[in-house]
Amino acid sequence: MISICSLNADVLERLYGKGARECSVPDTQANLVFSQSREFDLVELEQLLQTVGWSRRPVRRVRRALDHSLLKVGLWRHDLRFPRLVGFARCTGDGVLEATVWDVVVHPIYQGFGLGEEMMDYILDALREMGLERVTLFADPGVVAFYEHLGWQLEPEGRRCAFWYAN
Amino acid sequence: MISICSLNADVLERLYGKGARECSVPDTQANLVFSQSREFDLVELEQLLQTVGWSRRPVRRVRRALDHSLLKVGLWRHDLRFPRLVGFARCTGDGVLEATVWDVVVHPIYQGFGLGEEMMDYILDALREMGLERVTLFADPGVVAFYEHLGWQLEPEGRRCAFWYAN
Repeated sequence: MISICSLNADVLERLYGKGARECSVPDTQANLVFSQSREFDLVELEQLLQTVGWSRRPVRRVRRALDHSLLKVGLWRHDLRFPRLVGFARCTGDGVLEATVWDVVVHPIYQGFGLGEEMMDYILDALREMGLERVTLFADPGVVAFYEHLGWQLEPEGRRCAFWYAN
Repeated sequence: MISICSLNADVLERLYGKGARECSVPDTQANLVFSQSREFDLVELEQLLQTVGWSRRPVRRVRRALDHSLLKVGLWRHDLRFPRLVGFARCTGDGVLEATVWDVVVHPIYQGFGLGEEMMDYILDALREMGLERVTLFADPGVVAFYEHLGWQLEPEGRRCAFWYAN
């Protein structure tokens, strides 16, 4: 994907905060922006998550989870008045030794343009800037090949992932 | 393992903070205490990690990582004046939807008494109290059977763990 910078740097920072990064999707009129500081409307976020079939989570819990996340990234379809959220991801971690990526999603109509890869680049750049040397995630079966393609190592040194569920 | 309560509740709270839990190891004179609030001496922590062969990490980074951890648990060999750190584990996460366990260690001379299992019980109780319904971890090959025995599910629903390394 070829990124075409078209937004004024002042507009970019005012609407999307420091460190925002523009990208664009060929054959659409959309300017898209990655931001780690623009606030989310939790109803809009919930709607985005539901477009990829994720189960509803109570808004109050989601708000607290976001408040305690290390990094939250929004992918916004730029509009001077009403930017729309079309992608999302977040990380938990200590920001020093460990960071774990969760909830990576791109709206179905924006899939297939390499935005997932750009999202991961943006996240890893932000984490690298914090000084992290290693990042982890749990990949659903459908996205294992995607992460492998991006250079992530599956079960390095024979590590296995384990989940514990209450009840 | 049979836990024998022998410490005065006031002593327990004063030395190890609220929520401390005593346990004991048969055939030793040791009273052991799990604590989530007693402060660590980072040199002592480093020494403990080295008894199980973990590589050195810069103290300044470890301090920041601990400061930004969701939960830090010490297992202390009780002494009124100089409790000694004989076990450790920590979690990162948002404390609402996600928590991940890291750096679980028991000093070799205290291994084989079920303390690892008690440690995990203590951690999961603390996380449950926060309202977490799911906890995750990355298990090294040597401890996969341990976590399975405790009821953790390996790669549930085909999830795989993926690691990204800077450089």
